[in-house]
Amino acid sequence: MNLNPFAIGIHGGCGTLEEERLNPQQWALVRAALHASLLAGWRVLRDGGPALDAVEAAVVVMEDSEHFNAGHGAALTSAGDHELDAALMDGRDARAGAVCAARTIRNPIRAARAVMEHSDCVLLCGSAADAFAARCGLAGVPNSYFTTERRRAALAAVQEHARAGTSAQASESDRHGTVGAVARDQAGNLAAATSTGGFNDKAPGRIGDTPIIGAGTYASNGVCAVSCTGRGEIFMREVVAHEVAARLRYAGQTLDEATRAMVFDVLAGYDIGAGMVAIDAAGTIVTPYNTTGMARGWIGSDGVAFVATHGTVHRIEAA
Amino acid sequence: MNLNPFAIGIHGGCGTLEEERLNPQQWALVRAALHASLLAGWRVLRDGGPALDAVEAAVVVMEDSEHFNAGHGAALTSAGDHELDAALMDGRDARAGAVCAARTIRNPIRAARAVMEHSDCVLLCGSAADAFAARCGLAGVPNSYFTTERRRAALAAVQEHARAGTSAQASESDRHGTVGAVARDQAGNLAAATSTGGFNDKAPGRIGDTPIIGAGTYASNGVCAVSCTGRGEIFMREVVAHEVAARLRYAGQTLDEATRAMVFDVLAGYDIGAGMVAIDAAGTIVTPYNTTGMARGWIGSDGVAFVATHGTVHRIEAA
Repeated sequence: MNLNPFAIGIHGGCGTLEEERLNPQQWALVRAALHASLLAGWRVLRDGGPALDAVEAAVVVMEDSEHFNAGHGAALTSAGDHELDAALMDGRDARAGAVCAARTIRNPIRAARAVMEHSDCVLLCGSAADAFAARCGLAGVPNSYFTTERRRAALAAVQEHARAGTSAQASESDRHGTVGAVARDQAGNLAAATSTGGFNDKAPGRIGDTPIIGAGTYASNGVCAVSCTGRGEIFMREVVAHEVAARLRYAGQTLDEATRAMVFDVLAGYDIGAGMVAIDAAGTIVTPYNTTGMARGWIGSDGVAFVATHGTVHRIEAA
Repeated sequence: MNLNPFAIGIHGGCGTLEEERLNPQQWALVRAALHASLLAGWRVLRDGGPALDAVEAAVVVMEDSEHFNAGHGAALTSAGDHELDAALMDGRDARAGAVCAARTIRNPIRAARAVMEHSDCVLLCGSAADAFAARCGLAGVPNSYFTTERRRAALAAVQEHARAGTSAQASESDRHGTVGAVARDQAGNLAAATSTGGFNDKAPGRIGDTPIIGAGTYASNGVCAVSCTGRGEIFMREVVAHEVAARLRYAGQTLDEATRAMVFDVLAGYDIGAGMVAIDAAGTIVTPYNTTGMARGWIGSDGVAFVATHGTVHRIEAA
């Protein structure tokens, strides 16, 4: 779909619950949260703001929502608490910022932005990231702020599967999830942002692909912006987001060809759940995934939004 | 240079001191350390071992040497202690392992290998990396083990420049350094390994490109293996190691063309010191750098080694 002159696409993770595990009202709430995220980014773009601001705004909404594995609602480590990763990248000048293993930053994506703008670093980890965010005046929270009943239950389920030796039966949604956004602004700039709690029962200190520029997050003007979701280790090894860009730059592939090749060929070859949202220089948005579902949405300059969690895409007219 | 059927190349960082700052005997010691590193990797390859073992062995020698910014001899953070990063990647199957902000692991590259082989992770950070390495039986050391008088003096110099507002005059060697290795084994497999203390006066919690697969370290059979040195933040933003591979895979560039384009065009465009060692599928090794010097060396199946710190390359006949 071509959504010029400006557009934003989001994902809420490819670890979506099977459709029958929630009732229709609950899925409507998830779609409403996706729509709110899209609108937050869309308003920035409509007002002539940069793609970077739009993807940050969209991700903040999902971080604040309990429905997604990022910020409030994040997955729990095997130790029963939270370590959060986030990154963003500005396609204008390849500037980027990221935090990993953060524990007390209410909105990790805002901290990633602060790292980019107010430090000499690209990636800050652990308590240094928390302290830096506090020095920048970003809102801090106790680690328990991120915890929700759903994630507690999911952690218990994953740990029970591990004890019983049936981890393969743990549902995709119990295993991982991420949120992300990509956008093209009115000036043609691209940006990407991604934020996650990792996956339930992850080892403390484990860093996934989300905060790794080139793996889970990448943007380059004139080429594409990409935000990934899925088993992060494989995305790191395959340098997925940058590989998509390289296929556009050097191999003559379209965004649809490149992202489908990664999700359905390269990544599916590892037998992992995988998905992404990506946008090219023309504003075309794609949202391939190989799992049961992937929370996702996109909106163009006409303000008509499309949101989905599984196969059915819901159209929401502009207000 | 084509060094079939097996070969290994190394770098000891592009932050080499200006030639006049050490006497000839001291430079001879640096070259001897490079030669020892090459021989450690070469013996593995000669005996039919995998490229992954060879690059790990070569890096361990440089980590143990005071002459290089990795392991013993690592740079100091602004807090006056050490946080170490390392990664390796096996081109056979794109497996990889890395640690970042480690503080008590004698040989971080061994910990990266252990993460790859004995965990579900690709990247472990901070105290979790230290604890994991200890559980794997790797040698632990007090953080002060890594400290040398040269780095203490360099930190003091950098901090004095910062106070005086003359940071641009700090020498390249006071700012950064890294060690790395790439190899092709008798079976044609490629591997890369990189290890670093970062740079003097770095912020605690700062993660550079070394442990980031695709940025400072990358290997893929049939394409190339790359290990980088220089201002890590730019290598992360440009996803340098993977970009080299993408140019070989998709843009028809040779290894020499791709690495020179990165070091002398893309990275020099940021006005940063940059270098790398890389090897292609045929065993060709290149060592481009844009700084005063770069400790480096390479050796092929005939056992004749070449080592250098500045312009002059020294040939060392096989024993």
